[in-house]
Amino acid sequence: MSSSYGNHLRVSIFGQSHSEAIGAVVDGLPAGEAIDLEEVRRFMRRRAPGQNAHSTARKEADEPRVVSGLAGGFTCGAPLCALIENTNARSGDYDSLKNRPRPSHADYTAFVKYQGFADARGGGHFSGRLTAPLCFAGAVALQILARRGVTVGARIAEIAGVCDGPAEEEALFLSAREKEFPVADDARGAQMREAIAAAKREGDSVGGVVEARAYGLPAGLGEPMFGGMENELAHWLFAIPAVRGVEFGAGFAAARMRGSEHNDPFYFDEEGRVRTRANRHGGVLGGITSGMPLIVRAAFKPTPSIAREQETVNLQTGQAETLVVGGRHDPCIVPRAVPCVEAAVALAILDAML
Amino acid sequence: MSSSYGNHLRVSIFGQSHSEAIGAVVDGLPAGEAIDLEEVRRFMRRRAPGQNAHSTARKEADEPRVVSGLAGGFTCGAPLCALIENTNARSGDYDSLKNRPRPSHADYTAFVKYQGFADARGGGHFSGRLTAPLCFAGAVALQILARRGVTVGARIAEIAGVCDGPAEEEALFLSAREKEFPVADDARGAQMREAIAAAKREGDSVGGVVEARAYGLPAGLGEPMFGGMENELAHWLFAIPAVRGVEFGAGFAAARMRGSEHNDPFYFDEEGRVRTRANRHGGVLGGITSGMPLIVRAAFKPTPSIAREQETVNLQTGQAETLVVGGRHDPCIVPRAVPCVEAAVALAILDAML
Amino acid sequence: MSSSYGNHLRVSIFGQSHSEAIGAVVDGLPAGEAIDLEEVRRFMRRRAPGQNAHSTARKEADEPRVVSGLAGGFTCGAPLCALIENTNARSGDYDSLKNRPRPSHADYTAFVKYQGFADARGGGHFSGRLTAPLCFAGAVALQILARRGVTVGARIAEIAGVCDGPAEEEALFLSAREKEFPVADDARGAQMREAIAAAKREGDSVGGVVEARAYGLPAGLGEPMFGGMENELAHWLFAIPAVRGVEFGAGFAAARMRGSEHNDPFYFDEEGRVRTRANRHGGVLGGITSGMPLIVRAAFKPTPSIAREQETVNLQTGQAETLVVGGRHDPCIVPRAVPCVEAAVALAILDAML
Amino acid sequence: MSSSYGNHLRVSIFGQSHSEAIGAVVDGLPAGEAIDLEEVRRFMRRRAPGQNAHSTARKEADEPRVVSGLAGGFTCGAPLCALIENTNARSGDYDSLKNRPRPSHADYTAFVKYQGFADARGGGHFSGRLTAPLCFAGAVALQILARRGVTVGARIAEIAGVCDGPAEEEALFLSAREKEFPVADDARGAQMREAIAAAKREGDSVGGVVEARAYGLPAGLGEPMFGGMENELAHWLFAIPAVRGVEFGAGFAAARMRGSEHNDPFYFDEEGRVRTRANRHGGVLGGITSGMPLIVRAAFKPTPSIAREQETVNLQTGQAETLVVGGRHDPCIVPRAVPCVEAAVALAILDAML
Repeated sequence: MSSSYGNHLRVSIFGQSHSEAIGAVVDGLPAGEAIDLEEVRRFMRRRAPGQNAHSTARKEADEPRVVSGLAGGFTCGAPLCALIENTNARSGDYDSLKNRPRPSHADYTAFVKYQGFADARGGGHFSGRLTAPLCFAGAVALQILARRGVTVGARIAEIAGVCDGPAEEEALFLSAREKEFPVADDARGAQMREAIAAAKREGDSVGGVVEARAYGLPAGLGEPMFGGMENELAHWLFAIPAVRGVEFGAGFAAARMRGSEHNDPFYFDEEGRVRTRANRHGGVLGGITSGMPLIVRAAFKPTPSIAREQETVNLQTGQAETLVVGGRHDPCIVPRAVPCVEAAVALAILDAML
Repeated sequence: MSSSYGNHLRVSIFGQSHSEAIGAVVDGLPAGEAIDLEEVRRFMRRRAPGQNAHSTARKEADEPRVVSGLAGGFTCGAPLCALIENTNARSGDYDSLKNRPRPSHADYTAFVKYQGFADARGGGHFSGRLTAPLCFAGAVALQILARRGVTVGARIAEIAGVCDGPAEEEALFLSAREKEFPVADDARGAQMREAIAAAKREGDSVGGVVEARAYGLPAGLGEPMFGGMENELAHWLFAIPAVRGVEFGAGFAAARMRGSEHNDPFYFDEEGRVRTRANRHGGVLGGITSGMPLIVRAAFKPTPSIAREQETVNLQTGQAETLVVGGRHDPCIVPRAVPCVEAAVALAILDAML
Repeated sequence: MSSSYGNHLRVSIFGQSHSEAIGAVVDGLPAGEAIDLEEVRRFMRRRAPGQNAHSTARKEADEPRVVSGLAGGFTCGAPLCALIENTNARSGDYDSLKNRPRPSHADYTAFVKYQGFADARGGGHFSGRLTAPLCFAGAVALQILARRGVTVGARIAEIAGVCDGPAEEEALFLSAREKEFPVADDARGAQMREAIAAAKREGDSVGGVVEARAYGLPAGLGEPMFGGMENELAHWLFAIPAVRGVEFGAGFAAARMRGSEHNDPFYFDEEGRVRTRANRHGGVLGGITSGMPLIVRAAFKPTPSIAREQETVNLQTGQAETLVVGGRHDPCIVPRAVPCVEAAVALAILDAML
Repeated sequence: MSSSYGNHLRVSIFGQSHSEAIGAVVDGLPAGEAIDLEEVRRFMRRRAPGQNAHSTARKEADEPRVVSGLAGGFTCGAPLCALIENTNARSGDYDSLKNRPRPSHADYTAFVKYQGFADARGGGHFSGRLTAPLCFAGAVALQILARRGVTVGARIAEIAGVCDGPAEEEALFLSAREKEFPVADDARGAQMREAIAAAKREGDSVGGVVEARAYGLPAGLGEPMFGGMENELAHWLFAIPAVRGVEFGAGFAAARMRGSEHNDPFYFDEEGRVRTRANRHGGVLGGITSGMPLIVRAAFKPTPSIAREQETVNLQTGQAETLVVGGRHDPCIVPRAVPCVEAAVALAILDAML
């Protein structure tokens, strides 16, 4: 059951990088929700490859075909299934890698787990391509959340050590979503792009951090202990390939603060609602939303596929070998990871609201 | 179902800080496992309060009473249930806090979620005290894992910005577990203690980071996508109060590395086993264990209970108020959090192995 | 996770016939529900042994001790845990059975499953005694359902081939619950008792059928396919030892009807609500409640413990043997099974309503 | 999560009678299993309509297209997804039924549950057509079970009160599977067909009982209490439309037996294996397999669609109305239900074995 998750909502993702198709089944959606498929496609294009100079050469329409779950444009209570055909799989590209696991990819662990039967072409079920159906499900969740007053946005917080500017105000933070390079401060964005281009020139890659925020969340969402929003959000977010860490509010920085610095005092705002002066708690206390904006960050490792010779092993021959994965891949997947993080956060929140 | 978790193993935790008792039910344990309850008690004492100058005044025997699941000292296949009586609950201490949520505690969110019916005494079900049954379950899991060649240990990696020394060798890393103040480098430990004492003198508190490692894990544990070891470990770890972030291997630091720095090349060791030169991937690739040591870190915020006047609200009167929580609490829960992290990691691993 | 179940509500049952205690943890209950523990005890007494001439000699107070989950008499959102001490376990009685599985008991299958480590005393975790915590959980559910306008009742429908009289009217059907021998028609009840007494005289046992109905259910509860009320009710009901079949509405009799006889025509009642002329569908269509009373029946096999010599095997010696279990057991557990069925039905319904 | 189920195996079924396609995702299959798709198709043809004089006029190729989960003809560890296009949906046929729920169909309960947004065409997600993906998943499970020495077969046990002959021997029982009309005794089968034809002539329908058996099961499968084979098998079986009851071994008949008649004495067979003289327990004791053949029966109500005028309501106008569903439907779905029961049983068993 590794590829399906959710408590009230159940998302099941299927497909391999080079299987006939990939897709998602979303069960448990409320009935009567109008789904704007054009908006879904717009959202999915944000993570599609071939969007810009920074991304892989492989181009896919990523056209989702909804085969069930809608009637007259509204969710009908039956599971929503969307299929994305794999039109542009060039498995030949990967034959050269056969039996030679790419460093820091899942090739080796998949080989062991599935006793050599894993679909190794393009990373199989472990491919970043599987984030396309995740984004489909997330795009649907975002539309339903919007109708409930909840807005989820994400931005690039950092790439190659270059940080985006501050974006405390909701409008500024959410403005990043619209951009081809989703940062609040375009000057910082330009520096990030330069860092990516530099890495690419050197046949290398860079990582970064994506930050998501959710506005309009009611207080009282989530459950104690294992059912906390952090537990659930982390469970969804680590499904995105290359995520190495997840933090909330002040996150790891909180570990270096004193209680007097970190605590968020309560007060009543003009409408008499309970608010906190600051939001170092990231909108979650004891696993339950406080009514302040939810803040979560995910760290992405640098793309493991680099255009340099690397040391590896040949699982067939038992010999040490070297390989060059080739430069067709993103030198930085972080920009394309932004909608994936938005999708995962939206799904975790909708699951908690249903 | 917020207080029970696990896929093959199911841990259900019950109790409030001031209920008659707290405890855990552990279902799905293999039958025929000898459980050394004296060792379980030793483990639980590592998180018990009143161990040292740094911890809260409240002292509890934390004596687990196993009421089911064992026959003749062996697990019998039936759920294992342990009860810990609450012998030393001084609820009076908390009456003063009634209706005045403590900043950065779960008081307010619990109040909202349970419409005023939450057991507010001592944080109720959200109290750090509920980590005692978690440690009971974890202590049992550790004994079963040891029999399968898996050793899990944790240490204080950082407190108040003071980092523990490097501890790459297994023996050095695991040596920390035995210590009253679990660090590899006692000199650094002394600095951490000083930082804690300084915070206490100033009625303040400090946070830190706990690092756990698992040795002897077979390659191939875990599942892709939502069933990855990271997804599961994070799900377990965020059940520990005050955890604000979880990272694996190089974690957030990976976001600042280049692929050529971060990638872990494969090689065959003298026994012909596949190993990686470094372990920046933290023993997990694509959610599945690689056979290298598993490395995970959890960030803890500073104890929200501080002996200083703080701004809050009165949920009854709707007035702004101030409160002083009082100095009976840990100025730093990180040392006591070490066994809790060990427990959560052990449970996640055993669940994946069953 | 075999001993915990529920989707929105999670009931975890622990204990063995002769462990120190047995009990249940009920997680996911709404907060703010007043729980009348005296009423809970009254309900539990309905299944307690030693109530009448028909039941086993073993007498237990079956006094539930609630150790968590309540604050000031109301559910507080934390898991509700009740403990029942095993005060009167006479394990000596069972030594004679060691290694000699009782025919049609779980002794043999438990022996195989747990490789000889099962707690064989009194059937261990498989003992009918474990229905006591199920009844505790069910009694709590019944109080919460009553507040939502839902009444669940059960009666003996048949024992030893003697059927109870018709009881189409709600009041008549529910009147059975109050009785020491829960039937609608006491004359039929007297015949059933005679059949039980006759079987007892002959060192034998008899089985029967329990019928439960739920009144006041809203239309629209339950989910399609695997989440239907039938799927869930059956899942809960088969947790009661000795249940061999579960049917809804006309049940197996429907297999012998024609569509024109079985179909329930729809009409609008005087209040304009949609009703069906008859209720052969048992209040569930396509897994979802129709607003008509829910009707479910569970078949119980005759008590396998009989006072007659039976053929069995000795798992130690590998020799064929005979055994006499002894007459201390119920010649008919059906009367005591009535509250167990009520409990299981109430839990399934509450789970679907939350 | 109503349309996905399984503990170690997760089957997610999607689609509506008239959606673009229907299908299933099967997650958790072991890797390295060769899947013979021709055999899968043969199995699926057993439930396809239009096979014989008894079934509905609607003809579908029911051609499953496997879009993921296989690599080189073997399961690769990734979820297996099969799509079945809806090529022959004549929704026009159903317009006449709009707002007029068919008696004993799910039309009304779906209308209420989904507030009028349910896909009413052909029963939508509640259509018997959704058993096609269930049969796909089951066919795959049967191939994997066969490799593990487990054979599952089913037969018509009864239709319109006509019972099939006894079939205690495995070969005779399993011979029914091969037949176009799956009974052991073809003479009884002829009588059943006559009863079906008679009902059809009168514009009516009949129900029946399907019996499944599993041979070669190891002892020790299943879990106590909520995880018993009965709990799980019933949970899977009630997903098949029109099932009104499920029973094991002697089932409801056991309720009329005495313990001395019902108990199954143990003995050692010539190979020294523990066996029971009879198999009234149906191969399951305490929820756990005994090593004897598993025996389960499911009762099917008569097809609710009959060619007679029936009373119903108009949910739009609030007026009483009558409707005639029309004779295009099966007068008896029991023959086609046989492979569905085999599929559900196979999935429950494989789930317990993984």
